[in-house]
Amino acid sequence: MFLANSSGGTALTGGAVAFLNKEEMLMSKDEVNADKAKVAAKPRTNQPEVGERSFTIIIRLKLSKAGSGSLAKALDAIAGAGGDTEDIDVVESNASHVVRDITIGARDPAHSEAIVEALKGVSEVQVVAVSDVVFLKHLGGKITITPTTEVKTRVDLAQIYTPEVARVCMAIHADPEKARNLTIAGKTVAVVSDGSRVLALGNIGAKAALPVMEGKAVLFKRMAGVDAFPICLDTQDADGIVAAVKAIAPNFAAINLEDIESPKCYEVERRLRECLDIPVFHDDQHGTAVVVGAAALNAARYIKKPLSKIKVVAVGTGAAGMACIKMLLSLGVTDIIAFNQHGAVYKGAPNLTETEKWLAERSNPRCFKGTYKQALKGRDLFLGLSVGGILSGADLATMSKKAVVFALANPMPEVSPQERTENVAVMATGSSKYANQINNALAFPGIFRGAMEAGVKEITEDMCIAAARAIADLIGKDQLDADYIIPTVLEPVSKSDNTSRVALAVASSIKKYAAEHGLARRSVKL
Amino acid sequence: MFLANSSGGTALTGGAVAFLNKEEMLMSKDEVNADKAKVAAKPRTNQPEVGERSFTIIIRLKLSKAGSGSLAKALDAIAGAGGDTEDIDVVESNASHVVRDITIGARDPAHSEAIVEALKGVSEVQVVAVSDVVFLKHLGGKITITPTTEVKTRVDLAQIYTPEVARVCMAIHADPEKARNLTIAGKTVAVVSDGSRVLALGNIGAKAALPVMEGKAVLFKRMAGVDAFPICLDTQDADGIVAAVKAIAPNFAAINLEDIESPKCYEVERRLRECLDIPVFHDDQHGTAVVVGAAALNAARYIKKPLSKIKVVAVGTGAAGMACIKMLLSLGVTDIIAFNQHGAVYKGAPNLTETEKWLAERSNPRCFKGTYKQALKGRDLFLGLSVGGILSGADLATMSKKAVVFALANPMPEVSPQERTENVAVMATGSSKYANQINNALAFPGIFRGAMEAGVKEITEDMCIAAARAIADLIGKDQLDADYIIPTVLEPVSKSDNTSRVALAVASSIKKYAAEHGLARRSVKL
Repeated sequence: MFLANSSGGTALTGGAVAFLNKEEMLMSKDEVNADKAKVAAKPRTNQPEVGERSFTIIIRLKLSKAGSGSLAKALDAIAGAGGDTEDIDVVESNASHVVRDITIGARDPAHSEAIVEALKGVSEVQVVAVSDVVFLKHLGGKITITPTTEVKTRVDLAQIYTPEVARVCMAIHADPEKARNLTIAGKTVAVVSDGSRVLALGNIGAKAALPVMEGKAVLFKRMAGVDAFPICLDTQDADGIVAAVKAIAPNFAAINLEDIESPKCYEVERRLRECLDIPVFHDDQHGTAVVVGAAALNAARYIKKPLSKIKVVAVGTGAAGMACIKMLLSLGVTDIIAFNQHGAVYKGAPNLTETEKWLAERSNPRCFKGTYKQALKGRDLFLGLSVGGILSGADLATMSKKAVVFALANPMPEVSPQERTENVAVMATGSSKYANQINNALAFPGIFRGAMEAGVKEITEDMCIAAARAIADLIGKDQLDADYIIPTVLEPVSKSDNTSRVALAVASSIKKYAAEHGLARRSVKL
Repeated sequence: MFLANSSGGTALTGGAVAFLNKEEMLMSKDEVNADKAKVAAKPRTNQPEVGERSFTIIIRLKLSKAGSGSLAKALDAIAGAGGDTEDIDVVESNASHVVRDITIGARDPAHSEAIVEALKGVSEVQVVAVSDVVFLKHLGGKITITPTTEVKTRVDLAQIYTPEVARVCMAIHADPEKARNLTIAGKTVAVVSDGSRVLALGNIGAKAALPVMEGKAVLFKRMAGVDAFPICLDTQDADGIVAAVKAIAPNFAAINLEDIESPKCYEVERRLRECLDIPVFHDDQHGTAVVVGAAALNAARYIKKPLSKIKVVAVGTGAAGMACIKMLLSLGVTDIIAFNQHGAVYKGAPNLTETEKWLAERSNPRCFKGTYKQALKGRDLFLGLSVGGILSGADLATMSKKAVVFALANPMPEVSPQERTENVAVMATGSSKYANQINNALAFPGIFRGAMEAGVKEITEDMCIAAARAIADLIGKDQLDADYIIPTVLEPVSKSDNTSRVALAVASSIKKYAAEHGLARRSVKL
C-alpha cells in the first residue's frame, strides 16, 4: 500500500507491518504510477536526496486525551530531534487515550534512539513499541512458493500428482532434456552462497547470509521475471560446496554463485563449470564486470576519448576487481596499473597471487612501483573495488582534465562524491544515494534470463561483453550525461509491466549472441 | 478457468494450455463454488465414477466449411470411439474453415490414439495437433517463486537488499534463532528425494522424480498454506544424500524425505535426525502410517470392535508397510501376522532384515508359517502395502464377518474393490477412484505446518499418533459410514478458504502435543 509522506517521497508499508491495519490509501493508483515514472526518469546528482532515507521506524504511541494537543507535542518532539514524520495512523481510540503509529524517517539506529528519547520527554505521551521497517519487511522471509496450477477437483489432483504425474516422470526418464519444459528445472536459478564473504560483512555464515540471497531472489523476479531460490550452504570448503551444488543441480536451470571468498570462488566456479551442463556464474565477479564495462563504455563516450587511450588506475585485485580489470582489457583498454593491498602489481612483484601474476603480464607496461596515489597523476580512470575513504579530493585533482572516477567500495566509496573536484567529469559509486550507481542488479537478472531462454551451457566472457554493450546502448546520445552514464535499475518496461527494461535488453543481447554463435540449445525468439 | 462439461464434472484448463485463448467463463463463480462444495461433500462408493477421468486430451481440428455438419461428424466420430467430449472452443475462423479445440476425456493413451484415428477417418476434418492435458499442466513446472515484498522505489530496494539488509544479516549472525522469523528458513519445507524409488516407477533418478516433488510442493501450499521446494538429488548413496541435505539445511524449517528406497531411507533419516535440529520426516513411512492409523481407528469404530481385539494380516514389510504395522501396534493392535516376499515373518524365519527381526519379536505370537492367503481365514483386517492383484474375492470371503480391507498397492490395489465380498464391511485403497482413499496428502501438509509453527526439533511417533487420532476424529458419529471412514483431501475449511480442514486439524494436534509436552520452541496458538 502506498502512502504519501510529508517529504514528497513514498513509503511502502505492506503486510509485513504486523501490527498495522491501514484501510485507506492516501494516494490513488494513478498518482502512484505517475510518481513511479517520475522517480524512474529523474536523473540523480551526486548529492544525496532528502526524503529517500532507507532507515525508517514506526513508533507506536499512546497519547493522552486529557489536556489537548498531545499529538502536536509528539510531532514537535520528533521534528525537534531531527526525525521526519512520514505517516500517522490510528490503531485504537477510547475515552482516555488514542494509540497511533507514527512512521518516521531517521538517519540511522542512533538517531532513532534519540527520537525515542525525545518522545519519552513528553509527559502526555507513552512509547508503546518501536519497530524498524527494515526488520518488519523481513518477517517471514521475502519470498514465497506458489503453485502455478490450481487443485480444485480430484481430476486436478490426479493430473498434477499421482497417478497421472507418472507419465510425465517417465517421459523425462526417457528423455531428460524434457525436464527443461516440464519442470521448474528449465526456469529456476539457485542463488548459492557459503556465507564466507557477504557484502562488506565478511564471513558471517549460511544463516546470516540468507537475507541477502532472498533479496537477490526478489530482484530476479522483480527485474526479469525469473524464479530464483536461495541456497545458503552449511559448508565452506571448496569440495563441500562443489559436491552440494552438484547434488542439487537437477532442480535448477542455472547457478548464481554469490558472496564466496576469493580465491575459493575461482576454484568453485571452475569445477562446477566443468561438471555441470547448466550456466554457473559468480555474480560478484562477472556481474560487477558487466556493469563496470557498461559504465566505462559510456564514460568514454561522454568524455569523448576511446577506451584504447584511457589510462586506468585500479585499486583492488579481489574477485570483483580482477573481473572488472579483465572486462576493461576486453573492451580495449591497454594501459592499466593495478594495486593490491601491498602495492602495485608488476612482473616480479612479491606475494602476487596466481591471478595477479596473470595480470602482471598484461598490465603496468612501464612497471610502475609507486603508490596508487602517486599513480593517479594525469590518468583518466580510477577504478576502486577496495575499501572506503582511501582517496581525497586532493588526490582526484591530480588526475587528467576529464577524469572518470568509479569508487565502488561499499558501503563507503573510496572517495566521497562530496569531495569530487572540478576535473572529475564523471563519477560513479556502488551506492543508490548518488548518481551512476554501479549495481549488479542491472546485469544478473537479464543475463540469467537470456541464458536460460537460450538454454546455453555456459555464460561466456563474450556474452558478458555483449551484455555490457547492451546496457551502455540503452542511453541514447541525447540522454548521455555526467550524471546518467548508466540506466537505473528500477526503470520499468511500461506502466503496466514492472519488469526492468535493462533486464530485457540484457536478456536479448545474451540470446542474440547465443543464437548467432550456435550456442543456443533452445529456439530463440529475439 | 472452470468450464462446464457434458458429463456434469468440471475440467480446469488454465494458463498451461499454451495454444488456448478462452475468453468466456461458462460457469459463474457461484456455480463453481457450489459445485466444489458438492464434490467435496459427496461420499464416494467403491464404484469408479464416470466423468472423473484424469486422462484428458485436447485435439485441435481444422473443420471444412464446404458442405455442412463437419463439427457434428467430428463429434460423432469421437463419441463412436468412446471419447467423452467435454469442451469445444473456436481458435480461428475464416471463409473456408474453422479451427476448434475439442477437450475430450479418454480412458488412457491408447484410447486417445483410437479417437484420433476415428477423426482422421472424417473427410471434412483435419487433425492439427493433439495435446495431453496432463503434459500441458506441467509446462514450465508447477510452482513459481514470488516476492512477498514489493520493490517499487529505491527505498524499497535499499531496505530489502543492500545496504539495509546488512542489519538483518548481523542480527541473525548475533542470534541464529532469529533466522526463524526473519528468513524463509522459518517456514519452508525441502521435499528431498534421490529418485531411487519413485511412486511405483522404481529408480528413475533425480530429474524424472522432479514432477512428483513439485506436485508435493503444490499440495503443501494448497492443503496447508505451507511453502515447500523440491530438491531432487544427483546422488543416491546415503553419505551423499546426508551430506547434501546437511549442506542445504540452513534454508529450511523442515525436511520431507520422499521416495528413497529401503533400507537406505532408514539410515538417511536416522543420520539426518541426529545432525539437524529441524524435523526430518520420511513421508512414505510416517505419513502413510498416520493415515492408515486414522483409517484403522474409524474402521474399528464402524465395525464396533476395539483395535486390541482386531486380528491383522499385513502383506508388505517395506518402509511404508513397516511404519503402518508399527502404527497399528502403537494404537493397541496385539495380533499381527506380517508377510514379506518370502512368506510369514516369525522369530527365526530365514532372510529377515533388521526391521523384520524387530517385528518378529512383536508379532505372529503363534508363529504362523503358512501363506498370506491361508492366514486370512477368520481375521479382521487385511493391510496390503505390496503389489497389485495378489488377492481375489474368494480370499476375502474367508475373512471374518465384518472384515476390513486396506488394499494400498498403487496404482493397482492388492484386490479390486469390484471383487469385494459380502463379509467385507469396510474397504480402502490408495486410489482416488474409490471411496476411502488412504492418501498421504491427508497427513503431511498438516504435520509439517504444525511442526514448523511449534518449532519442534523433531516429529515424534507420539505426534504421529496424535495426528492419526485428529484425522479420525474429523468424522463424527453420525457421519461415519462404510464409505466414509476417512475425510477427503479436498474438503476446504470454507468456501472462501481453500485450505484443507484436515490439514488444519492435523496441524493443531501436533502443536497441542508439542505445547503440552514442552517440545515447542515457539509460542503456540491453538
